Amino acid sequence: MTMGRPQAAMDSLIPGFHGVRETLIQGGGAVREIWIASKKRGGRTQEIIRMARERRIPVVFKDAEAFSQALPGIAHQGIAALTERFQYEPLESVAERALQAEGHGLIVVADHITDPGNLGALIRTAAFFGAHGLVIPEDRSAGVDPVVLKRSAGACFHIPVARVINIGRALDVLAKKGFWIVGTSGEARTPIYQFDWRRHVALILGNEQKGLSRPARKACHAVVSIPGRGPIESLNVSVSSGVVLAEIIRQRAS
Amino acid sequence: MTMGRPQAAMDSLIPGFHGVRETLIQGGGAVREIWIASKKRGGRTQEIIRMARERRIPVVFKDAEAFSQALPGIAHQGIAALTERFQYEPLESVAERALQAEGHGLIVVADHITDPGNLGALIRTAAFFGAHGLVIPEDRSAGVDPVVLKRSAGACFHIPVARVINIGRALDVLAKKGFWIVGTSGEARTPIYQFDWRRHVALILGNEQKGLSRPARKACHAVVSIPGRGPIESLNVSVSSGVVLAEIIRQRAS
Repeated sequence: MTMGRPQAAMDSLIPGFHGVRETLIQGGGAVREIWIASKKRGGRTQEIIRMARERRIPVVFKDAEAFSQALPGIAHQGIAALTERFQYEPLESVAERALQAEGHGLIVVADHITDPGNLGALIRTAAFFGAHGLVIPEDRSAGVDPVVLKRSAGACFHIPVARVINIGRALDVLAKKGFWIVGTSGEARTPIYQFDWRRHVALILGNEQKGLSRPARKACHAVVSIPGRGPIESLNVSVSSGVVLAEIIRQRAS
Repeated sequence: MTMGRPQAAMDSLIPGFHGVRETLIQGGGAVREIWIASKKRGGRTQEIIRMARERRIPVVFKDAEAFSQALPGIAHQGIAALTERFQYEPLESVAERALQAEGHGLIVVADHITDPGNLGALIRTAAFFGAHGLVIPEDRSAGVDPVVLKRSAGACFHIPVARVINIGRALDVLAKKGFWIVGTSGEARTPIYQFDWRRHVALILGNEQKGLSRPARKACHAVVSIPGRGPIESLNVSVSSGVVLAEIIRQRAS
């Protein structure tokens, strides 16, 4: 870690117009400050300033140096939202909340998704379809960092995330609590349409390139696949998650 | 344009391990050369060299300077595939091929998708679900550049892409040929599950932030929405496309 870098700030600074706007809309209460580059003008900047004022959130002007120190290598467009540090939740409480929700519980397990953009898009997709929680492992996985927050477009304020040391053990916990552990894999024989999703489900999405990890695969009660029609074998993980979650919602609503 | 930059090469250079591997698998015939950074070693590099040899594709070693000149600002991991320049196809031939395909035609229209990563993921998704072609506008849209080729993971070799000057006119052409023009929008009342997709369809996916453009909306015979369950209003465009295309394939297969 670089000496003097504002670690706490960096961990909770959401960059870019879209990220800031969505954060103000979705998680306004968690925003402590809006950062704007000193020379920034223009309609989008004014809109953000207006939104911040409405919510009584201070707007501070920062020079380019402050931005590049706090968000090294990240496209920030000279605008950022400083929010409370992202809080993970214990697996137990994520599971309990899912079981107590109306209808059947739905938890998404991100099995070593290393690309922050993919994890952010997955969080957004899971929140769109009303999943009750997300589980990510500590090792060999992106954490909820500024890029993830940006790509999740505010969705991280609507879905609790549990970060676990051992994914196999976490799946055992969920299974014992009554969740069906369901993995997705291109090679599985059961199409998502032939699986009955009207039960408590922990849906595992595998790594972009390696698919399901060994402990995840071992924990699965069922493995399902998305029927394709072309020569391409796999989908981006956030796209797969969208397709499966949409089918779960469709079945549960009918 | 910078003087002396190899423009033709840049337009057809696919960066990164995943992109190169998928390009060799999916579009090997279009690869003219594999570029490897001079000091590159390791298992993944050896695998690419082996794959290239099997396909009788020359492997050339280049210094860091050559990489950064040809792929400015792009993460390339010291490996790239030099392919024939991406060839767009005329709208007419994309439409005719779709109409002649077995079952019903399916064309995806990317309505001013500016983010290259999103366009690449959309191409991959469209190819996975066997869409017969893609239409993109020339203006205010990403073209099929190295980032798009990388993110499409070889899929661009399997789906013809037409680049049109005027999206409204292109949709008129498709409508006259018998395609139903169907847009997606969060505000539409018809859920994708209540629409009968067993007809020739041109599916329009709107811009990441602005949604459907005015000419696209005007051309629509129907506008459909993806039912969500949470407070998040929209999905990433490649995720939306996956959800809608999966439903189209599901209905057509049943």
